[in-house]
Formats: sequence, structure tokens, C-alpha cells
Amino acid sequence: MINDSIFKKHPLILVTNDDGIYAKGINELVNMIQDLGDICVVAPDSPRSGQSSAITSELPLRIKCISNQNEYKAFKSNGTPVDCIKLSINQILNHRPDLIVSGINHGSNAGASIIYSGTMGAVLEGCLIGIPSIGFSLCSHDPEADFSPCREIVRKTCKLILEKGLPQNVCLNVNIPTGSPIKGTRVCRQAKGYWTEEYEHRKDTHEQDYYWLTGHFVNLEPENKETDEWALANGYISIVPCTSDQTAYSAIPDITHLIEKK
Amino acid sequence: MINDSIFKKHPLILVTNDDGIYAKGINELVNMIQDLGDICVVAPDSPRSGQSSAITSELPLRIKCISNQNEYKAFKSNGTPVDCIKLSINQILNHRPDLIVSGINHGSNAGASIIYSGTMGAVLEGCLIGIPSIGFSLCSHDPEADFSPCREIVRKTCKLILEKGLPQNVCLNVNIPTGSPIKGTRVCRQAKGYWTEEYEHRKDTHEQDYYWLTGHFVNLEPENKETDEWALANGYISIVPCTSDQTAYSAIPDITHLIEKK
Repeated sequence: MINDSIFKKHPLILVTNDDGIYAKGINELVNMIQDLGDICVVAPDSPRSGQSSAITSELPLRIKCISNQNEYKAFKSNGTPVDCIKLSINQILNHRPDLIVSGINHGSNAGASIIYSGTMGAVLEGCLIGIPSIGFSLCSHDPEADFSPCREIVRKTCKLILEKGLPQNVCLNVNIPTGSPIKGTRVCRQAKGYWTEEYEHRKDTHEQDYYWLTGHFVNLEPENKETDEWALANGYISIVPCTSDQTAYSAIPDITHLIEKK
Repeated sequence: MINDSIFKKHPLILVTNDDGIYAKGINELVNMIQDLGDICVVAPDSPRSGQSSAITSELPLRIKCISNQNEYKAFKSNGTPVDCIKLSINQILNHRPDLIVSGINHGSNAGASIIYSGTMGAVLEGCLIGIPSIGFSLCSHDPEADFSPCREIVRKTCKLILEKGLPQNVCLNVNIPTGSPIKGTRVCRQAKGYWTEEYEHRKDTHEQDYYWLTGHFVNLEPENKETDEWALANGYISIVPCTSDQTAYSAIPDITHLIEKK
């Protein structure tokens, strides 16, 4: 352990993100929940958007303490969001956190975005090791976005989950729309859809080809009120219960039949 | 499109992996299925293990054709496995593949490993865009492993899925044990468990701390015959139907109750 006794109070709340420790979103998040427990921030030293559940196994990881104030402790790492959770549990904290919160992400993680999201990668890691975990995302990529619409739901869900916990293997993906007023909160499912990538093809200064990722989300069910994308498009906060178990349970009988018939 | 008319035959099979295009596993995989259709390999130019569903949005991507023989076409990219799928669909292929196969991975992707696996990241990407997709992994990290125990199940599942397809939003995670004889094939679910990381803490030549990822998988239900880990530990090939939809459907009523009660 790097620090042997710095985290004494309960509850202990571990905070991370994928936009990096200097992003506005994570600092706003800490401000919103600072009175709810002992806060430890462990986040990437630079933006790690789109890192999903990636882990670093072929490079050495570093941890640097950047704030050791009374209010809270903060560490940055050269790893991914999932590395930050693993390093926290195994090297930084001297007891298990009671809650992991990730974000507030600059940009939506609704629909299929969850699969690529480093913010949600950290949350799924927490879920996998049995710690109640919540990801928060604001539907704006503006680095200077106004995060005040997040405050009420962030505090409400953190307090609620600290008190009640979450079912086993379940974590939360909370997305907050921009614009006001917020109409309410909807517990929903991930909208079916995918990102269509129209890479931009360019030539570098040596006349060599390269490609930049661009693209947009294609929502296959824009009118479906059970989905997170519908909630957000209609001014509601979306809360999707998620799991790190990727088994398609409903397909087991069909696939068994298919494989065994042959 | 880089190539306007090189892929004419049907079926078209797109092959990728996360160990990189020069790994033994992907070359063995191509040899096993070369007669089943028109093969296009698009894989990372170096090992990308543990990349999950990571995407590259802040660096330019490159594609280089490394084989243009009659047998099959091969391209390498500086991207992740998911980038390879996206680049294939959007820049390399002139029509949608009929099947995506990823692997053969050097090492198991059973249990919780799926969440970190670049091999399965590529498969989940294929699933998300509606293309039947299968990941194959051999339970050996040896770069020179004997892949011959994979041949029969690789050919059987590829032929079967080319003929019958897969249910919507479902892909397959196929793991093959080492040692013989293989007792059979079991369609199962992902074992519950997690990786426990005991980072190795070292000092560099400047007396600075660094940490290497290590650790092992903790199986929470080693005796459960419904799981992939049990199948592999007992000499069976495991086939887990997976989905890219991470909604925990069974938790929606409880979470709704929890949120709305407050």
C-alpha cells in the first residue's frame, strides 16, 4: 500500500473518469459529493476516452499523488480507467471502497456508446469485483460545460446506493440531458443501435494515407420509450442497470440446439 | 474504399485478432477456414491484448496491405481490434462480410476475461453491426502453441454459422482446452468471478516506483457445470452465446422501485 492510514472515514468513495484528472467533469463530481464520505480520486493523467475495459499489461504503470489536502486525496496514473480501479484496490487504498463513481463524462454514454466508454469500463470493473458502482455522463462534449443539471441526481443516487447498495452484478449508467428543465428520471434499457463510422480519409505531408474516426449513432428504435436514448431526447435523465456478465442467456437453448444437432 | 473489386466471391469472411497479424494463432485460423470462402485478414500490426472494445479517436489510423496473393488478402493497421473491424467495413471491403472470426487467441477468454479481451472486442463489434461473429481462443499463452485441437470446432462452427446465421444481437465466445482428448462441446454461460491483481511493485533505475500487472482469475463457482470455466477445466470446448447489450434486464424492476420510491 502506498498510504497506510490516510483513509479512515466511512463511507469511502473512489472517484475516477476517462477524460483525465484535469477535466472539469471529475472536479465537479468531487465537489458535488465531497460531504458524503471520504473521497479518493484515482484517475488517468490524460484523456482516455474510448478505452472501454482496456487494461495495461505490457507497460509499467505509475501512480503520482497530486493532492493530499484535508478535503480529499487525489492520484493520477498513466493507466486506463480500469487500471485506475485495479491500482486503487490493490495499491492505494487500505480498505475496499463503499462506492465507486466514474465521470462526470463529457458526452453521452447512452445506447451503444457504453461498449466503448472508459467511464463505464471503470464502472463495470467495480461491478465485477462486487463494489456498488455508478457512471455519470452529461450529454455535452464541451470542456467547459455547465454540470449543474447533474448535481441533484448525482447526490440522490450516491446517497441512495451508499444506503441501499445494488443487486449483485449490477451497476448503473446514468446519463443527464443538457437544456432545462429536466422532466424527471427514467429507469430504462440500452437503446439498440450502432455507430456508423465515416472515417475521414486524408493524405499526410508525405502523401501517405491516414484515417480519422468520425461518425454518428444510428438509433434503431427512436420511438421506443423503454430506451435510454428516448429518455434523453425527451428531456429525462436515463438510468440503465448494467451488468458485466455478457452471456446472452435467452440464446442458450437455440445455440445448444444448433450445435448439438450437427 | 481502398480496393474496389478485390472481394467478389461469397461468402466473405473477415478475420482479425488481438495478438497481432504476425501471431501464430491468426495464421493457423486462416489455414483452417481458407476453403470456406473469400478471406480478408485485417489485424493489428502489433499485439493488442487486453484492449477490450477500445477505439482510437485521437490518433490517425493507417492501413497497410501486406499480402495480395490469390489465396487471401491481408492488411495490418495501427489500430485496436475494434478499429480493424470498423476500418474493414468502412474503408477496405466493398461489401459486408458474411462472417467475422477473431483469434485464435493465445490464451483463454473464458469467465470474466471476456470483458478485457480485444479478441472478443472485435466479435462484439461485429455483433453490434449485425454480422455473425465468433471468437476462438486456445487455453495456452505459448506463442508456438499447437493449434490442431482447434481445427474441428473452428471449421464446424464457421460452416454452421455461415449456413444458419446467429440470433440478433448474439455472438459466440468459443474456448478450446489444451491437452487431449477433447471430451466434447458444451454450450454454457460465463462463469462468475473476477481477476485479482497482485501488482508487482518495483523501483526503476532512478528509484521511482512502478507497477506491473499480474494476478489470477478467482472462479466463484468452480463446481458449476453450467459455466465455461467448468467445461474447460474438465476437457470440454466451451461455447458461450454473448451479447453487446449490457442492460441488466432482470434488475430493471428493482432499480425502478429504488429510484422512484425516493
